Formats: sequence, C-alpha cells, structure tokens
Amino acid sequence: MTGTVGPTAPPPSPPALMHIAGTGSALPGEPVDNAALSGVFGISEDWIDIFVGTRTRHFGWDAASGKVTHTLADLCAEAAGRALAASGLGPADLDFLILSTATPDALLPSTATETADYLGLNQLPVHQIQAGCSGAVQALDLARALLAGGHRTGLVVSGDVSARFLRHGQDAAELATQELVNYVLFGDGAGAAVVTTEPYDDSAVAVRALLHRFAGRGRAPGQIVNWRGLAETEPDRPMLFEDYKTIEEQVPALTGEIVWELLDSAGWSAQQLDYLLPPQLSGHMTDRIVAGLGLPPGCREVSCVRDTGNTGNALPLLQLDLLSDRLAPGERALAVSVESSKWIKTGLALERPAQTGRP
Amino acid sequence: MTGTVGPTAPPPSPPALMHIAGTGSALPGEPVDNAALSGVFGISEDWIDIFVGTRTRHFGWDAASGKVTHTLADLCAEAAGRALAASGLGPADLDFLILSTATPDALLPSTATETADYLGLNQLPVHQIQAGCSGAVQALDLARALLAGGHRTGLVVSGDVSARFLRHGQDAAELATQELVNYVLFGDGAGAAVVTTEPYDDSAVAVRALLHRFAGRGRAPGQIVNWRGLAETEPDRPMLFEDYKTIEEQVPALTGEIVWELLDSAGWSAQQLDYLLPPQLSGHMTDRIVAGLGLPPGCREVSCVRDTGNTGNALPLLQLDLLSDRLAPGERALAVSVESSKWIKTGLALERPAQTGRP
Repeated sequence: MTGTVGPTAPPPSPPALMHIAGTGSALPGEPVDNAALSGVFGISEDWIDIFVGTRTRHFGWDAASGKVTHTLADLCAEAAGRALAASGLGPADLDFLILSTATPDALLPSTATETADYLGLNQLPVHQIQAGCSGAVQALDLARALLAGGHRTGLVVSGDVSARFLRHGQDAAELATQELVNYVLFGDGAGAAVVTTEPYDDSAVAVRALLHRFAGRGRAPGQIVNWRGLAETEPDRPMLFEDYKTIEEQVPALTGEIVWELLDSAGWSAQQLDYLLPPQLSGHMTDRIVAGLGLPPGCREVSCVRDTGNTGNALPLLQLDLLSDRLAPGERALAVSVESSKWIKTGLALERPAQTGRP
Repeated sequence: MTGTVGPTAPPPSPPALMHIAGTGSALPGEPVDNAALSGVFGISEDWIDIFVGTRTRHFGWDAASGKVTHTLADLCAEAAGRALAASGLGPADLDFLILSTATPDALLPSTATETADYLGLNQLPVHQIQAGCSGAVQALDLARALLAGGHRTGLVVSGDVSARFLRHGQDAAELATQELVNYVLFGDGAGAAVVTTEPYDDSAVAVRALLHRFAGRGRAPGQIVNWRGLAETEPDRPMLFEDYKTIEEQVPALTGEIVWELLDSAGWSAQQLDYLLPPQLSGHMTDRIVAGLGLPPGCREVSCVRDTGNTGNALPLLQLDLLSDRLAPGERALAVSVESSKWIKTGLALERPAQTGRP
C-alpha cells in the first residue's frame, strides 16, 4: 500500500497468531480395505470405488466381532502423546487442553477430562467442544484466544469414532443409499497439535490467519446426528440424516470463499501457495472441490481421506500432521474445512518461517 | 504491600477480567411441585422433602403426556433474548456465542448453532462446550479469552433438559435409590449472560477473578451420563451412574478450596463478601455446603435450586441473574460450582463497581 515494495518482493506475512510446535495422529488397528468392508456389511466393493473413492479406513472396533477396541479417549491420548513428543515439550509444559468431537465417549465425564487423566494432566483448564468437521479449527480458534489471554502452551486434540452408528452385522445392501453412505464414508481416528505463543525452534509452523464463522442463519441442516438417552421422547426423530446433494453443491462454493478470504487475511496471492489442505468428505468429493478451485498447478494437495476415510474432527489435524513433514522453510499452506450440519466456514493460513540461521 | 494503605482502607480490587452487561433466565412452563411430581412418578412427596429438599422444578415436557414442549435451543434462545434486553445491546452487537450443556438437542447440528439461528446471528464464531455443572463458568473462561483476543462483546448461554433421562410413565417407586434420585433432583432451564470488555453503564458487574481447573487426575468419576446411537456396542455400559456418597463428601471440601482461592485472587477477605452463590446440587446439599464454609453472617446466600431443581449448566447463570437484581454498587460476591463427573473446580469473584457519579 505504501508503494515502497516492488512486485517481486511481496509484503511479509502478518505476525503469527500462534505457532504449531508439534503434531500427532492416531489411527486404530490395521487399515480396512474395500474388500474387507464389503465382507462385513455386504456392500459392493465396486460401488465404494465408484461412488466414494475411499480405499481404506481404520475402525476402533473389531471387524470380526464388532467389539470396541479403542475409545475416543484412547485415540486422543495416543495422538496427543505423539504431538507432545514431536514438539519436544511434556505434559508439565501444558497450560490447557481443548478437545473437539461429534462423538464423545459419554456425555459426562467429558472425553477431554478422560484424555487429560490418561496424559497425567491436572490443575489446568480442560475444555471439550461439540463440533463437526470444523471442530479442530474451532478448537484452534479457542486455543488462540487462550494464548492471547495469558497462557503460553496448549494442546488441541480432535477425533471421532463410528461404532455407535455402524450396526455390526448389518447387511448394508438392504439399506437406502442415504443410510448406506454412512457405512462407506467414515473411519475412526484422532489428531493433535501442541500450540504455543512463541516458536520454540525453527520447525514450528506459524498460523498467519484463522477463519471461523457460523454461516447457517436460515439454512436447513445438511446433516443431523442424533443421540438417545433412557427415554424415547421423539420416536420419529431421525438418528442420522445427510442431505448429500446439498453438501455436494455447497461445500465446493464455501471452500472457494474460505480460500480467498484466508489469502486476503494473510496478504498472500494464490501464486504464493505451496500446499492446500482441502475438505475431506470423501476421495471423490475432495477431487471435485480441488478441481473447482482452479489454484495454480504449483500448489500441491495434502489429503488423507482416501486412506483414513472421513474421520470427522480428526481430519484437519491428520492433514496438518502430514503437512508438517513436507512444509519447507518459507513455504505456505492453506487448510480449509466446512461444517455442513449447520454451515460453519473455517480455515487456517500456515507458514513455516524461513530459517533464521540460529544454531 | 507498600504499607501506604491502612487496615481500614483495603486495597482496591484487581482490574476486571470482563464485565457482565446483562443476564437472563428461561424456565419452561409452570413450576411442578412435589405433589405433582409424586403423581407423575409415584415418588413419595415426603421422601422428596426429607431427602432432597427441592420444592419445585420446571420441565420442558408436559407432565400429563410426556411430550416435549421446549427444546434446549428454545430455552437458550429465550434466556439469551432476556440477557440482551437487560444489557441494552442487540444481536448485531455480538462478536461471538458460546453455549454449554451436558444434554444437547442433537450431536449435530450443535444446539449453539440452532440458538444462533433463532437469534438471527450470522457470520460470527459459535462454540458449544460439552460440560456438567461447571459449564457456565467454563464458557465464561473461554469468553474472557475471546475478549482478550480482540472481541468486544459476546453471549454465553448455558442450559440442560431432562426429557431423555426421565422415563415418562415410569413408576419410580420401583427403582433403586441411585436411579430414583435422578427423578427428584433435576429440572430444565437455561441462563444467559452478555459479556463485554468495557462496562457500558453503571449496572455492569465486574468479574474480578475466574477459577477453572480440572482436578480429576487419578480420580474415579462421581457421575456418568451416557448416550446411545444406532448400534448397541456396549450393552453393559450404564446409562446413568451417580456416586452420591462421594459427591456428598467431596463437593463441600472442593467448595471451600475454591472460595479461599478466589478470595486470594481478588485480594478480598471473607469479611468483605456480601453474597455467596454456592453449588446447587439439591436444597439440602446446598444447605450443608454453606453451613460447612463458616462464612461471616453478613454474607448472604443466592440460591435457586429449591425452586428450579438442579438445572445443570444453567445453575450459575440463574444465580447470577438473581444476583444482578440484588448486588448494590460496591458490593462483592463469589460464585462457586463443582463438576463432579470428573472433578472440575470453577468459580467467579464478582463486584458491582461503586457509582462513578457519571450521569
């Protein structure tokens, strides 16, 4: 704006909102491929390939017996342990824990407090966010605020598990497509990130911009996930509902809006992007979203959904964990996630600062 | 500490962390007294008086038919509307919404986004906290952080509903005491508070200190509230469990710890307290907690549980709503809540600043 910076020397990025000091992932058991999934639920392997485009996923339950092998707290504690190890920090360095999920192990106690107990944490604020696919970025938004409010180091953990919504032994071929789709979309997992006000070393990733905005006023839900207690108060209430057609229409458009808004906030052009972490609804949907954006060919995609399935809250942190191994000093990335249950736009502008030359 | 202030002029309170600009409550329908509750569930009216000490409660379901009349989002929107009216601010002034509950209307979409839609909010961050009796203070902790992070005005809403855990038509006299107690403890409701960085007028209440600390490492849950999806993955898992004896032992001790820590943070002595907002488990339990603290007789109690029942997340904000009508300029209050599912200590030190003399 001042005219003192030429077109070949773009303005520097804005100051970091916070830094990602380490990331970690947890995916239960061995990958379950489409042939194996077909064996459990009687779904055509070809149909999964053609319609969904996901190759494998992991489940926190045993495919043979249906028995739960991993709770959400198990997965969150595992991912958190890896993020701490990657950051070089320990549980005693943490000032707070925030966990996000759509599928907590129980309503009370929170999975966040159970995870804190697994990690040996005590005497610190522990929060749990109830959220959909944008939960990890919503949790990072709160982490940023807690860091601004005086804390120095925090842990964000996000994940989901599917056991209570996939009926083991169900012959899914008998189901209507709108229910069948749940059996092939989802996987279980958790991701974690250690966040700090200041970078501890050159490997930290700076968060240059963060977008988190509810955009669902007057709009019908694209997805409903319900729960039951002891009493059946509303027998006609659907337990699962997914308006796949609306999601298919809306998510690519919302992704575009988020990309341009993040670029604007960070003061970057699309040509300066090295990586895009797009929404991970399914392998095919992600392909369509990326194709529709028309970003320059130099911008590489970081996706995991073909291997992990849709792991809900975990996805942005699983992608961030992949990115952290690839992002070179000076490189830039955008991460985008869209919550389609009631339409929340979220995203991150990320940069690994250029080497400072410090020893 | 400097020696320049004599014992008759105590040091001033610390700067406000934030201000409460307005509060509101929502309790569905007419109060249900013990005689009426006895009629619905076959519980002895005398037993309720002797064991629980709660006189009335409100339900978001019809006592005659069991039909749900108020969702949690209905109650939250109603309480929020009242808090906004009391603050003199409107929905357009809000920078964020945080809702806390243990009993969301669905897992997705969040009740927070549904409430935002009812209020006509859009294009702002909306968060939902999964929490127990401390949820309102946990939400205020996050609100304080969001205000520190650059926002100016936010809305905190907290509430719970009971319909999915009280089986209408159940003859509760047949139940074991540990399940029966649920039928007489709970009520439905929501509370709301508009929070601001700066006071808009002399009626604002300053938050001088806020405590929020997980203290459950290695401790068994005092309470479990579970949920079911479509598949029954763990048939032996209890849906409700309450270790009433442990709660009865622990909550008074934890309350004492919170009171002394808040006094220390605010730099106040117990003699300077005008009001106490104690935990609201039941009428009798609240009496025992208050008696055990041994606060000076000038410190008056602000409780609602005898009239509202245990409304979970709503309680601290219902008490705050009562306090805001009573607290005179220069008066001070402490609010304490304890989450017994996995042991979270929370509390607030509140003060209505002395009149500034401004018109």
